[in-house]
Amino acid sequence: MSEQPKTGPLVRHLGGFRWEGIAVQAYKAEGEPFRDVTRQLLFPAGAGGAGELRYFEVGPGGWTTLERHAHVHQVVVLRGQGRALVGDRILDLARFDLLCVPARTWHQLRAAPDEVLGFLCLVDRERDRPERPGAADLEALRATPELGEFIRI
Amino acid sequence: MSEQPKTGPLVRHLGGFRWEGIAVQAYKAEGEPFRDVTRQLLFPAGAGGAGELRYFEVGPGGWTTLERHAHVHQVVVLRGQGRALVGDRILDLARFDLLCVPARTWHQLRAAPDEVLGFLCLVDRERDRPERPGAADLEALRATPELGEFIRI
Repeated sequence: MSEQPKTGPLVRHLGGFRWEGIAVQAYKAEGEPFRDVTRQLLFPAGAGGAGELRYFEVGPGGWTTLERHAHVHQVVVLRGQGRALVGDRILDLARFDLLCVPARTWHQLRAAPDEVLGFLCLVDRERDRPERPGAADLEALRATPELGEFIRI
Repeated sequence: MSEQPKTGPLVRHLGGFRWEGIAVQAYKAEGEPFRDVTRQLLFPAGAGGAGELRYFEVGPGGWTTLERHAHVHQVVVLRGQGRALVGDRILDLARFDLLCVPARTWHQLRAAPDEVLGFLCLVDRERDRPERPGAADLEALRATPELGEFIRI
């Protein structure tokens, strides 16, 4: 099940938010709507833990996919600054802030224009696939100008 | 189910590894064998996530309880330096290192003599109670001098 080589109990941080033996992966497939996001699988689903712990990094000005799903995201910011849309709110994010994205809630994270945003994201081992907004969803989001300005698709 | 007040999706880091609305708790009951350890429940079991995410802080020279259990610990070091006993190994810990304590494996974390050790620890929502070493367990650990010197009980 493990997507990373088993190297013993300790995986060293190499500096710069890179870890020994852990690949820096694409966040999603090419063509999906996101900008400048990478993904590292720190504790994969097969490692015997409660869930899967990933580290995502969004480059300056980058953004994750606007989506929602039944599973919850639990986020710990480790690096930089940014903002998050969660439901109908836009929230500033700084280092070590904790963010919980509830079930079935539209969300998108954006790095500050001149700073990387790096964060841990904890999810259940078993989880549903994200849903992207349709035309009616986008219309509803854009009815609030602040949200309409924030979102990237 | 939640052990912390529900304040919305964002919990701000206040600086110094303290978070708004999250209590700094005792690590374990008085009288249990540990030294200078606190516990903060960042994402409690009732928050809808895969597990429970806690932040532990061990003061300079402090140590967690030597114990083992069926559930797995997944640790991300956030602050300072220390060492961990995991099974028959002693491992140096530095910031952002990842540590996985397998099931049924003796473990103990110690802060460096002059530094705080702060770490995230992810566990399953439902988990068994820790077991402390008996006389035969301690004898087995102490058969390796390096382990015997490390452990505190």
